[in-house]
Amino acid sequence: MRFELLCSGTELLRDKINSNSILVAERLSSLGLHLAQVTTVGDDAGDFESALKSCLSRSTVVLCSGGLGPTFDDITRECVSKVLKKPLIFSNKILKQIEGCFARAGRAMPRENERQAYVVRGAVPILNRDGTAPGQIIALGGKTLILLPGPPRELLPMMDSAVLPYLENKYPHGASKASVLHIFGFPESQIDEMIRPVVEKKWDWNGLTVTFGILAHRSIIDVKATVQGKSASAVKTLSGEIRKSLYEILGTKVYGEDEETLESAVGRLLKKRGETLSLAESCTGGLVASKITNVPGSSNYFQDGVVSYSNESKMRLLGVKKKTLQKYGAVSEPTAREMAQGARNRAKSDWAVSVTGIAGPGGGTKDKPVGFVCYGIASHDKTLTIIKRAFGDRLEIKEMFALNALELLRRELL
Amino acid sequence: MRFELLCSGTELLRDKINSNSILVAERLSSLGLHLAQVTTVGDDAGDFESALKSCLSRSTVVLCSGGLGPTFDDITRECVSKVLKKPLIFSNKILKQIEGCFARAGRAMPRENERQAYVVRGAVPILNRDGTAPGQIIALGGKTLILLPGPPRELLPMMDSAVLPYLENKYPHGASKASVLHIFGFPESQIDEMIRPVVEKKWDWNGLTVTFGILAHRSIIDVKATVQGKSASAVKTLSGEIRKSLYEILGTKVYGEDEETLESAVGRLLKKRGETLSLAESCTGGLVASKITNVPGSSNYFQDGVVSYSNESKMRLLGVKKKTLQKYGAVSEPTAREMAQGARNRAKSDWAVSVTGIAGPGGGTKDKPVGFVCYGIASHDKTLTIIKRAFGDRLEIKEMFALNALELLRRELL
Repeated sequence: MRFELLCSGTELLRDKINSNSILVAERLSSLGLHLAQVTTVGDDAGDFESALKSCLSRSTVVLCSGGLGPTFDDITRECVSKVLKKPLIFSNKILKQIEGCFARAGRAMPRENERQAYVVRGAVPILNRDGTAPGQIIALGGKTLILLPGPPRELLPMMDSAVLPYLENKYPHGASKASVLHIFGFPESQIDEMIRPVVEKKWDWNGLTVTFGILAHRSIIDVKATVQGKSASAVKTLSGEIRKSLYEILGTKVYGEDEETLESAVGRLLKKRGETLSLAESCTGGLVASKITNVPGSSNYFQDGVVSYSNESKMRLLGVKKKTLQKYGAVSEPTAREMAQGARNRAKSDWAVSVTGIAGPGGGTKDKPVGFVCYGIASHDKTLTIIKRAFGDRLEIKEMFALNALELLRRELL
Repeated sequence: MRFELLCSGTELLRDKINSNSILVAERLSSLGLHLAQVTTVGDDAGDFESALKSCLSRSTVVLCSGGLGPTFDDITRECVSKVLKKPLIFSNKILKQIEGCFARAGRAMPRENERQAYVVRGAVPILNRDGTAPGQIIALGGKTLILLPGPPRELLPMMDSAVLPYLENKYPHGASKASVLHIFGFPESQIDEMIRPVVEKKWDWNGLTVTFGILAHRSIIDVKATVQGKSASAVKTLSGEIRKSLYEILGTKVYGEDEETLESAVGRLLKKRGETLSLAESCTGGLVASKITNVPGSSNYFQDGVVSYSNESKMRLLGVKKKTLQKYGAVSEPTAREMAQGARNRAKSDWAVSVTGIAGPGGGTKDKPVGFVCYGIASHDKTLTIIKRAFGDRLEIKEMFALNALELLRRELL
């Protein structure tokens, strides 16, 4: 069984992000089904027809999105009719629905929209509750061609109400379980080497399929293991075994699973300890605080933050000594220490984290180049300071500085 | 001439937005070239090879992104070698570059990365300044196959430094100029209606082609006008005329062009006035400060910011009166006013902006639902307060709250 998506729309080849592939993939994966290929073509009949022929020749189910609108560049219906050699049939029932749609908006239906009342002979139309173009499910023997409108707000309800039930019934499938472990601050190649024994182990349990993947987005690495097979309980058991093997190797390098972020991991640990946090940021400019407060309920442990961009504000808001700034500079371990201690004392929080560094593009020196950063972590009995180095442009460096601050704090909270 | 992009990566068929197609399309369109088709396949050799064969059979130039990493699921090199029937050749020079990349980060190169030093016979390697995998340009008679790494921060510099110059030389074309104007906080349909006279005007000057587009990403609307033709000077003149017509209609609704963001527009205006800014944030949790400090040189006008998440910190850090908090609540115009005034007085800045609202998902009431927000803008002679409402999930609401704060300040600075 192979599933494929064919998107049409010249705007998708220019400046519009194609979010339909992710939306369709997510919906399919809820049934344990996976997209094998996505093709995007413009509003060009030749390109669309040739792509559609290829899709149908190699896949079991082809979903098409887009090109069902009323205007001249909406060509899906006509192209499908030509490729399948099935005529378009006018449906009075669908015309009534389209007219109803305009009537509810207090307008008469423009003549252009009549085109949307045509369906391929033999197709099952799908009612569009959020727009005018109906979808179409076309059974072709064992294969299926499904036509959906381009706008996600029309496509998604159709996926849920009609397409998924249809596919579940026509292509009964097995169970599927994916585990994703997140790691920060290690090279992809090191993690790859570490998990190799797990990846290369023979996991073939009674025909279950196991796939591994490593995905690095800058310094965050996702290790993903997917188990698929007929028996849901066998899938669950094997998935648990693999997860356990990965944890045995990776341990606390893993900061979280699935939807967990570094900031929600930090929040979880603070909540568990019943402790509070304050922040003193210079170069990150509020980014650490913004991440911390992205987590719902963060007001339970996040006290306050200070963005002390100038030396003057480091003194006024955090009580950093003028002498320290003069002797060691704003980007230094002694300043980071006083920032963290000052934040902790003033907020009366259990923990305080400070960040002071050089985000660039200017301001670097030989000793303290762009990307150089000092952290302070103050708690009731000690204040740590740590020096790190990040690379990239200003925004990438800020992001790395912020993620590093969260990871350093997380390790202290373990 | 036909251009096609083939992206590989199982994650792109699951849960990762494929932004490379837009990035590549934008770069190509700067040369007046257009993508005709984008295909995405997973890390599956069979799928990749068959897609590559199809791409090469129908297109002049095929760009591939992804699959050049060091791990087991990076299969592009091997598949290309097989499809083209050209062996992979080990390059000592590239190995040295990869080792240098690790050395700069203070680490030894893991053995896995050796794989990245192989290029297809006859390929021109492209140096990767931001990662380890080199790109490859493979001339196939009149056709060209180009291999690029998946991460946009590695792919884009290679497009600019090597791919575009190569294409410009091998496939000479006409001139093209795109103008993009950014607008915040107006409905797309209103902007669409406003610019209609410009869009519908007959701009056909001696065979120049003009295309208009409106792209809305949440509350930011981009109005794009692209002029193409043979004469670079005619393209430039017409592009300027159109830009002028758009400004006549949209005026100061436009906050910037091309790479300008709301925060860089605010920074530009503050710098022009020689004035400074401080911030007092509650619900946005540092996001406004983080945006302001994304702009290089922001230390010239950004004094400091306070993330006063708790009532206690609103009093301690900003001098908000206990009585105000008790009588009107933390999310109220009087509190927003005292936050802004407190921030301005303490930082001795020319301007201060405060934000206090309900980002959700909890904490909403009938009078002050989730998405309700109060702003304060303090300057030397007055303090404004403004109430707004945003919609979406917590992160979307935070983003809207922050963008609105920047836009409100921008209008005061005009």
